Amino acid sequence: MREEELLRRIFERSRGLPPSVVLGPGDDAAAVRTPAGDTLLLAADQVVEGRHFTPGTEPDLIARKLVARNLSDLAAMGGRPLWSLATGAIPDGFAHADELNARLFHWAALLGCPLVGGDLARTSGPMVLSMTVIGAPHPERGPVTRAGARPGDLVFVSGSLGGSFASGHHARFEPRLREAAFLCESLGARLTSMIDVSDGLGLDAARVARASGVRIEIDARRVPLSPGVTDWRAAAGDGEDHELLFTLAMPGPGVPEPACCPETGVRFSRIGLAAAGSGCVILDPDGNAHDAAAFGWQH
Amino acid sequence: MREEELLRRIFERSRGLPPSVVLGPGDDAAAVRTPAGDTLLLAADQVVEGRHFTPGTEPDLIARKLVARNLSDLAAMGGRPLWSLATGAIPDGFAHADELNARLFHWAALLGCPLVGGDLARTSGPMVLSMTVIGAPHPERGPVTRAGARPGDLVFVSGSLGGSFASGHHARFEPRLREAAFLCESLGARLTSMIDVSDGLGLDAARVARASGVRIEIDARRVPLSPGVTDWRAAAGDGEDHELLFTLAMPGPGVPEPACCPETGVRFSRIGLAAAGSGCVILDPDGNAHDAAAFGWQH
Repeated sequence: MREEELLRRIFERSRGLPPSVVLGPGDDAAAVRTPAGDTLLLAADQVVEGRHFTPGTEPDLIARKLVARNLSDLAAMGGRPLWSLATGAIPDGFAHADELNARLFHWAALLGCPLVGGDLARTSGPMVLSMTVIGAPHPERGPVTRAGARPGDLVFVSGSLGGSFASGHHARFEPRLREAAFLCESLGARLTSMIDVSDGLGLDAARVARASGVRIEIDARRVPLSPGVTDWRAAAGDGEDHELLFTLAMPGPGVPEPACCPETGVRFSRIGLAAAGSGCVILDPDGNAHDAAAFGWQH
Repeated sequence: MREEELLRRIFERSRGLPPSVVLGPGDDAAAVRTPAGDTLLLAADQVVEGRHFTPGTEPDLIARKLVARNLSDLAAMGGRPLWSLATGAIPDGFAHADELNARLFHWAALLGCPLVGGDLARTSGPMVLSMTVIGAPHPERGPVTRAGARPGDLVFVSGSLGGSFASGHHARFEPRLREAAFLCESLGARLTSMIDVSDGLGLDAARVARASGVRIEIDARRVPLSPGVTDWRAAAGDGEDHELLFTLAMPGPGVPEPACCPETGVRFSRIGLAAAGSGCVILDPDGNAHDAAAFGWQH
């Protein structure tokens, strides 16, 4: 069964959740309400040896990637991190478990989600690390889901896309926490939806379209390509960019579009439009429409 | 490096945590304070194919064990569950991913910690499932740590111990949530420490002794043996019992000791004493002292 189909069934099973669950499975993070009335964001992600990193990758990069992937999910909700937990299934004979641990503590603390607990076990197979991050949504904007895009919204992406594995970006990317905070702060309710581009622009944009009940059209000529990337197909399908894809209610006359995050300089590029309808297409430079969901990376 | 040594280093690294972390790594769960003032318990645990279950185990039992192990950690803190997240690294070619998912949702909901999020990935090796559970401590007693035992305290264990793998108990045990709630409710501050017996009575009792800075002496003749278990060594070292080991401030004259949980009938057995000093010993039926930490199961 493909990941998309599994995810669909997971989403169906989440009906009947208690009222404390504001937002259940199916987005980059869940949102829950604590007894005293705090809203918290909860996200979990993993890295698997041979899948998300190659055997022999140094512990520092493995640890950094695990933390950054989780924080990217939190950024996609407009959240700020509070705490994290991690578990590790460590291959028998792996000699660097202590170093890996130390680097997990290091990166979790440095990126703002100190590790407060976890578990270690041994495995006869490839390494599997899992992390859960707990965060808080933006206090005014609240959790930004992938389900809020409306016909007429503009579609943006942060940074640039494509070639993440070849360039090593997948192991060293900066989770877009400050950029997401800036968007929440400056746009408020005009920021209608957001998602983390982890599985490819095509697949992730299609997820926004489906969750929001709109059609999304992306202009391939406007998609910002990472250095060394020359084909829009790589930007649409390589995955692991961990940039923010977001939609923005059309500004009134004279209201500027967001161009970059003033704190980090990361650019925002308008790449498309949401319209009434369903599905997600990428218009190539010759004007041919491609099904966006066909571009992407199913782990 | 042995698990104990790794855990010691993890504990050292947890210095310098922010004030929102009430209790960092090193106990069955962490405790954190949310912005609005809620205290939450956070625990993460995993099951690894070939380590915590044998290949070919039915998805229902794998899912149940993952949920129950996590809830046992929460029970050890005197907590009640609120929500959970799970990640799974699923072997290539495993045909029952959807069933496994369905059973995770089922058991999480049934045992009181509905699944609100997670992630699925593929692996070329054995299955690794990880879960994080978020809970609330007992409202009056607060989090029950393993560090509160004092000289003179009585040492108790719930249920019976030993032979968990042989009997299948490890896959079907009931997390002792209601028993823990009863102990918090009825004993309050007299419940001085608690731990989940997961790695063997010997090793886990030694952890309480070390964390609390006391010496613990266990009388092997008083240790309740599970059906089919005839040797106290099995009860001391087999592990995966997931019973509660707890200490109790000596009651005043005429105050009865807790005998069982009225709601479930699970018995509590007094098996030893805490004293000034350090270390943990088990006195065998002939009166010989054994180092308790030598009995146990390092995953």
